[in-house]
Amino acid sequence: MYLRKKNKISIIGLGYVGLPLAIEFNKYHNVIGYDINQQRIFDLNNFLDINNEMRSINIKKAIRNNLIFTNDESKISNSSIYIITVPTPIYKNKKPNLTAIKNSTKLVGNLLEKNNIVIYESTVYPGLIEEICVPILRKQSGLKYNLDFFCGYSPERINPGDTNHSLKNIVKITSGSNSFIASKIDKLYKKIIKAGTYKASSIKVAEAAKVIENTQRDINIAFMNELAKIFYKLNIDSNEVFKAANTKWNFLNFKPGLVGGHCIGVDPYYLTFQAKKVGFNPDIILSGRKVNDSMGIYLVQKLISEMKKRKITLVKSRILIMGLTFKENCSDIRNSKIFDVISKLIKLNCKVELFDPLISKNFLIKKYSRYLIKFPKLNSYNVILIAVSHSVFIKLGKKKIISFGKKNVIIFDLKNIFKNEKLFINF
Amino acid sequence: MYLRKKNKISIIGLGYVGLPLAIEFNKYHNVIGYDINQQRIFDLNNFLDINNEMRSINIKKAIRNNLIFTNDESKISNSSIYIITVPTPIYKNKKPNLTAIKNSTKLVGNLLEKNNIVIYESTVYPGLIEEICVPILRKQSGLKYNLDFFCGYSPERINPGDTNHSLKNIVKITSGSNSFIASKIDKLYKKIIKAGTYKASSIKVAEAAKVIENTQRDINIAFMNELAKIFYKLNIDSNEVFKAANTKWNFLNFKPGLVGGHCIGVDPYYLTFQAKKVGFNPDIILSGRKVNDSMGIYLVQKLISEMKKRKITLVKSRILIMGLTFKENCSDIRNSKIFDVISKLIKLNCKVELFDPLISKNFLIKKYSRYLIKFPKLNSYNVILIAVSHSVFIKLGKKKIISFGKKNVIIFDLKNIFKNEKLFINF
Repeated sequence: MYLRKKNKISIIGLGYVGLPLAIEFNKYHNVIGYDINQQRIFDLNNFLDINNEMRSINIKKAIRNNLIFTNDESKISNSSIYIITVPTPIYKNKKPNLTAIKNSTKLVGNLLEKNNIVIYESTVYPGLIEEICVPILRKQSGLKYNLDFFCGYSPERINPGDTNHSLKNIVKITSGSNSFIASKIDKLYKKIIKAGTYKASSIKVAEAAKVIENTQRDINIAFMNELAKIFYKLNIDSNEVFKAANTKWNFLNFKPGLVGGHCIGVDPYYLTFQAKKVGFNPDIILSGRKVNDSMGIYLVQKLISEMKKRKITLVKSRILIMGLTFKENCSDIRNSKIFDVISKLIKLNCKVELFDPLISKNFLIKKYSRYLIKFPKLNSYNVILIAVSHSVFIKLGKKKIISFGKKNVIIFDLKNIFKNEKLFINF
Repeated sequence: MYLRKKNKISIIGLGYVGLPLAIEFNKYHNVIGYDINQQRIFDLNNFLDINNEMRSINIKKAIRNNLIFTNDESKISNSSIYIITVPTPIYKNKKPNLTAIKNSTKLVGNLLEKNNIVIYESTVYPGLIEEICVPILRKQSGLKYNLDFFCGYSPERINPGDTNHSLKNIVKITSGSNSFIASKIDKLYKKIIKAGTYKASSIKVAEAAKVIENTQRDINIAFMNELAKIFYKLNIDSNEVFKAANTKWNFLNFKPGLVGGHCIGVDPYYLTFQAKKVGFNPDIILSGRKVNDSMGIYLVQKLISEMKKRKITLVKSRILIMGLTFKENCSDIRNSKIFDVISKLIKLNCKVELFDPLISKNFLIKKYSRYLIKFPKLNSYNVILIAVSHSVFIKLGKKKIISFGKKNVIIFDLKNIFKNEKLFINF
């Protein structure tokens, strides 16, 4: 059934990046989607994407059109092209955790045949593919790089929860291990990317371009966070300040906030890792990271001082947290910084309740899942903390949310979803 | 001749900010423009703005329409409104130099009468006007703040050399010491600002908004500078990387470069000064400043290493610097960082020549003016460093500029004005 076909593409890793890629490429190629997560394969074969990125109907259509989801390694052999879209997270010590990218590279290396192309989409640091992955591919396959097999890098620019900027609608960078392969890879992606592609001059340049995109965002939010902290100390309403500054034509409308997720809070560490390796200390990027990582604790401090002002006792106070994901309208809780806040509040003996209709109990570890509620109670909370701007929260409306609170309730609207509501406290 | 009139406005400081303001307000009010610089008053009375911001014809027109330029203090007495637009620079130790704002406040304080309004336009730190200026006004005048006299802050957003964003076309923040005065000041500015005004909720908020605008720009350029340094160490062409990253819809197209001038390189220190006073260390802003202040030295290092590569001896090498101003198409050399480069090159015994048709010898201190040339010689230089993207340089063209160089010339095009010219080195 899985005969050797021209341009059979295997996609390793079926998360946010791999799944839409598999579905798009399947329109033009014989595509096998591989993931080591059995549950994920089971779900996909039942037309379910728990990330809510792809609709059931589209998964169904793709499967009818011969897209195969599997965790059987043997099924991805005999491909012409392997695309690796596995996560590249960091360890607790902030160093790159290359386990997934190394393991999937080994897997592909074992299957590699002459003239195969291996394309990476994962975020890496500049140099990683040719310094770390290529040697593994060479060793496992016994083949020669840029003679027998080739590589490419086309960084993913998926924006979870953003339907305007889907795979097809975002210009995609491509690159290859030589100019011929670069053109071939560029042509490959051009077919599926409506917005067009941009052929970078080398894999290294493409790697560097990807990692600075999220780092720039990280720095800009970190700057707003630093300002929020300064203005809090100076007793100035930072939201008022940002509103005024935003009337300048070139002021960038970033907002202070918790920076979580698997990209913005992670990617900068890949770049700083490589910079440090060559003896350069990236002060700005690292101070940005430090500030962003500190915002959970800052928030708890601000919350406590607001409670003191209104003479609400901290211990046993009832606190409702609305929204646990790292971003609005998605179910992704990876590195969500709200857990720093929750964890601290639990330690302080507050009675927290967690409300997020986009996630289910089994998404959470026990430490937190026991606090998850189906729906908030009326007249119950001393503090309500709206942490994420899920559409469902906006739809609930101000009045309803206020009705969850006790008479003297303090409401934090971290994302300022209820604009100009003076009663609500922003970041 | 200078009778007490309703709404006589005196403007203290006739630089980039005060001059256009005087000319605009003069269309509706009786305006006196005051400056302590005698030469400036002489020039203006001869229709000359050496900053090239205002055209002669417009200055002439304004004078015919009764605008008075003077350095005679007595002439600004009996005003209803004083607008202070003096510079707020920093000392060498980076601390705010408040001499000009304090002196002009004293001057106004001595003349202050009941119901007068004093409006500041200078960049300050949040709190400065009410902590530093108001006490001076009170002391000098013996009047009571917010009873006998009032204050306001309407930060300047002048963009030297940018004709699209002139005074009239930039939304202007206004604020006042109480809500009645805030409205009055807002109405005053509304008359002259086509783009409209934005009434901030307090003087402090307006002060804070102003100082973060340029600080945000500073941080973003600093980030690009940090990246340029990292990629140089990693032997990656940073320009290629930025071009690729710019294909993402939300990547911010900042460029690495020398950050000089009297705003971007200065304003952040006002904010950090006030933050430190309340015990907060603004790491991000300060690391940004540190990186930006280091770029002159970085550039010299890069230049030396390029010369080594091409086996050009440093000592007695002839180096042409094109552009000395802190910004294109203006004659402003305040805090221009190119002088860090020039000074270092002179110390290294290079033979530098400085070419900038927008400035004349008397703009420069002797240390530098002796190297200023009228026009570069042909076939003469080992290195050409285009530091500013003056239109005249773009008009000169690539060929002409190359013709100034010796056979093996190294050309640095810091502003990348000759795009995609692979022979030229960027930042």
